[in-house]
Amino acid sequence: MQKPLILVTNDDGITAPGLRSLVAYMQEIGEVVVVAPDSPQSGMGHAITLDNTLYSKRVIFEKDKEAPIEYSCSGTPADCVKLALQELLHRKPDLCVSGINHGSNSSINVIYSGTMSAAIEAGIEGIPAIGFSLCDYSWDADFKPAKASIKRIVQEAIEHGIPRGVVLNVNIPKTNGQPPAGIKVCRQARANWKEKFDKRTNPMGKDYYWLTGEFELLDKGEDTDEWALANGYISVVPTQFDLTAHHAIQDVNNWTLNE
Amino acid sequence: MQKPLILVTNDDGITAPGLRSLVAYMQEIGEVVVVAPDSPQSGMGHAITLDNTLYSKRVIFEKDKEAPIEYSCSGTPADCVKLALQELLHRKPDLCVSGINHGSNSSINVIYSGTMSAAIEAGIEGIPAIGFSLCDYSWDADFKPAKASIKRIVQEAIEHGIPRGVVLNVNIPKTNGQPPAGIKVCRQARANWKEKFDKRTNPMGKDYYWLTGEFELLDKGEDTDEWALANGYISVVPTQFDLTAHHAIQDVNNWTLNE
Repeated sequence: MQKPLILVTNDDGITAPGLRSLVAYMQEIGEVVVVAPDSPQSGMGHAITLDNTLYSKRVIFEKDKEAPIEYSCSGTPADCVKLALQELLHRKPDLCVSGINHGSNSSINVIYSGTMSAAIEAGIEGIPAIGFSLCDYSWDADFKPAKASIKRIVQEAIEHGIPRGVVLNVNIPKTNGQPPAGIKVCRQARANWKEKFDKRTNPMGKDYYWLTGEFELLDKGEDTDEWALANGYISVVPTQFDLTAHHAIQDVNNWTLNE
Repeated sequence: MQKPLILVTNDDGITAPGLRSLVAYMQEIGEVVVVAPDSPQSGMGHAITLDNTLYSKRVIFEKDKEAPIEYSCSGTPADCVKLALQELLHRKPDLCVSGINHGSNSSINVIYSGTMSAAIEAGIEGIPAIGFSLCDYSWDADFKPAKASIKRIVQEAIEHGIPRGVVLNVNIPKTNGQPPAGIKVCRQARANWKEKFDKRTNPMGKDYYWLTGEFELLDKGEDTDEWALANGYISVVPTQFDLTAHHAIQDVNNWTLNE
């Protein structure tokens, strides 16, 4: 049987340790091709490059027959997936994995996430897709404790398929070397960011801001990704790109929109 | 009674004719404050500025007592809303409207849309919010035929409130001077973009790409935004930012994730 073709991408850039770990894990499962941004793209959401050019470049990290084919791309994570599917891959991939992100993409973070936008772009194009994130922003974060779980989620996704219109958002707790407590399928917790702008003055006397903020959990449910992570579990949230709030259609239909 | 405070923003930039029209229409309903990008931000999705500075500037287009207070901002549409709510407005707005976008944000376009990301950001912060888009990319597009409908949707939203966790995605057909056929509450049509990369060589001999593509409708339903627009109606899609695919949780729970 042909090995599954796995497209690996991320938003931290092609040299990020999280991507390098994911590439190594995926090579134990299938044939890997990497198409990832040439620079960090955190917080890019589902941005695409409309009024600028895109460059891509073959990257060779080691001269090893077993090394995967890798390309860097000047665009956003969503651009990388579009370019991979349309121009760079020799056949349609069986799976797209994005990450492992350095930092959480749980709860409302999914909407700002470049990691998840790459997975969602693949999902829109009909490719089963999973985004992986570790709740540790440091560049030397330890991805190894989650290796077995990551491989299992990928293998189950390949075996069962992912429902159409759905991509998986997987977040991994920081466990200080211990294996996670287990894997829980969850819903996205309700939360937002309490912004705080740090206002400063530049050397030319002009005011500017840094965007900072604090995550504010507004949800006490025990079926959420935040609950799972706080209790040492890996969270798996099935995530959709049909944004229709079907439950609200009837509400708005009660308005007097037409006379 | 105090007039409602309406925050107006967009993704085409503060000088876009679509924004200027929306500002004029909203001034007939409430007190308007504008916080909009200082440059075009189309296709930015829900990007935010994490590793760069943000500038904002008071902009005065006309010295008129009735003119609204306006700020341009160096960031993305989502940044504009965050900065407005946290730093620039003197009180919490009663409504945020984004647009009128020059071009469609129906169907899958919602996910790439800077216009809608601004509205969604306001929704996340608990502000009733509506994104408006006209299916005409030209800079001299005619917004007037939709004026009465836009005002009606805004007035109904203020009167009834928008359900929590929901923002409205309003798309307006191009009607060549005629009023639209009416207003329909819809679901998002299933569709994607068939990408075509236009590969060229730059003067230095290096290959690059332009992202282009064709919209591909995959949905024959008569309850979709695409159907409404094709039949001359304004589409209103209640849109949510809880991306959980609740129907898929049980599916994934049947996988063997834990032994």
